[in-house]
Amino acid sequence: MRTYAEYLKLVEDALSPQLRSLGYIPEKLLESMEYSLEAGGKRLRPVLLLAACDMAGGDVEMALPFACALEMIHTYSLIHDDLPAMDNDDLRRGKPTNHKVFGEDVAILAGDGLLSAAMELMLRAACAMGDLRGVKAAEAIARRAGVTGMVAGQTIDVTQEGSEPTLEKVSYIHAHKTADLLTAPLEAGLILAGAGEEQVRQGIAYGFHLGMAFQMVDDLLDVEGDAALLGKNTGMDAALGKLTWVAACGVEQTRLDAAEHSRQAVEALECFGENGAFLRELAQSTLERVM
Amino acid sequence: MRTYAEYLKLVEDALSPQLRSLGYIPEKLLESMEYSLEAGGKRLRPVLLLAACDMAGGDVEMALPFACALEMIHTYSLIHDDLPAMDNDDLRRGKPTNHKVFGEDVAILAGDGLLSAAMELMLRAACAMGDLRGVKAAEAIARRAGVTGMVAGQTIDVTQEGSEPTLEKVSYIHAHKTADLLTAPLEAGLILAGAGEEQVRQGIAYGFHLGMAFQMVDDLLDVEGDAALLGKNTGMDAALGKLTWVAACGVEQTRLDAAEHSRQAVEALECFGENGAFLRELAQSTLERVM
Repeated sequence: MRTYAEYLKLVEDALSPQLRSLGYIPEKLLESMEYSLEAGGKRLRPVLLLAACDMAGGDVEMALPFACALEMIHTYSLIHDDLPAMDNDDLRRGKPTNHKVFGEDVAILAGDGLLSAAMELMLRAACAMGDLRGVKAAEAIARRAGVTGMVAGQTIDVTQEGSEPTLEKVSYIHAHKTADLLTAPLEAGLILAGAGEEQVRQGIAYGFHLGMAFQMVDDLLDVEGDAALLGKNTGMDAALGKLTWVAACGVEQTRLDAAEHSRQAVEALECFGENGAFLRELAQSTLERVM
Repeated sequence: MRTYAEYLKLVEDALSPQLRSLGYIPEKLLESMEYSLEAGGKRLRPVLLLAACDMAGGDVEMALPFACALEMIHTYSLIHDDLPAMDNDDLRRGKPTNHKVFGEDVAILAGDGLLSAAMELMLRAACAMGDLRGVKAAEAIARRAGVTGMVAGQTIDVTQEGSEPTLEKVSYIHAHKTADLLTAPLEAGLILAGAGEEQVRQGIAYGFHLGMAFQMVDDLLDVEGDAALLGKNTGMDAALGKLTWVAACGVEQTRLDAAEHSRQAVEALECFGENGAFLRELAQSTLERVM
């Protein structure tokens, strides 16, 4: 097992080279995609994928294209989410959003491009592996990012703005808009490592609970956080009438529910024994900013 | 070999069931995706994929998810292309464009959803096949639809509007924005059928020349066509300052070049002998509307 900083460095060093390895990309498109891809952030999703693969004894280098693909998918979703027709955000990670710099047309294409590049990278890697692990891992990522996963959650998030924040709707949004993209790296990383069915099942449970806790913390930070520290505007959820856990249950209950999901995430790691230490600590640290 | 109507029926009957087979999709998202997916059209790309597979003795049923995926990719590109920030079209195939009916936010997500669904369907089919043909076919489609293919062509098309229509730029746009998505079905269909390298190479040449001829015909129709017959506004290319073959070379030269590409498409089919009849006739018929 490695440290967070070590996984992070593997990802940071690979993102742009992986994208550029696809061939000639028009300058403006490449610039726009790299602007958002290199805007930093915690790289939580690709780190989770590498750590999950590592935890089950897999080859982290071999998993790298899948980790980069997942970060590209996350990045495309942020670019499209920030568009004027969607959340209309002008600040992301302390920098102007993609469409503010490159225009809406290029921002739409940069999002389309990052999603396409993610799929292409995974498929190329799957071709090179010579067995079905790569294609199964790619399928898991595509499924959780797709119309029954992240895009489904986004749709409810966008179209239900301003409606009654029932727990049922908020659960659906959090499970799909957020948790699906934290479950994907566990499922894919473990499949790539050749883990057994029960381990994959527990990894998926970990990702789900981590994702729910993570989004609840995000909801809390939008109410209680410091815009300068977060690098984005706060109070936006309430302004947009977003269906958040806080809107549905209040601040105190959200704090309790986040802690409970974090506990269940840790519990799911039992079958990995000592190898689960890295992901266990990660689930616990999720809560630090709001407790 | 089958007739165009037979391939078309296979595609039409499978599109919506394939999409719905992915699981529960939020109503608004599904409605929006199906609105554009079922707006008709010639289904040229999926028909090409099935015909290419058939021509090399492959199993057309097995190729169907890939054919549907390709039509979903084509449809997503049209939805995003029609957005106000892009070409700002309000009419497509005689119907209001997606964002006119569902709003820009849902239209963006419907495009993202169709691209994601396409990848997921191909990956699921590739998993089920048990060998690497499926993943190689999916890779070819993703590559030609991606940042070195269709999205690259789209970017130049959008960002170079109003600039000098040099043959170099117009060739790049036509080769990537249009021809790459007509080459993809040949490459993928032949790979799925287990065709040899030389046949795949000739199939790719056919797709490229067909695509170039096809886009030149489209450029001509925008100048000379009847809006009511075409189901979309004409004269839009000139109004938007689009880099078309007509803008670069004039009407007469475009007609000659389209004929030459059509001839080269037919020539590439020689190695398929009698089995190439369907695609040969299809290349010849491309020119009918403008000769």
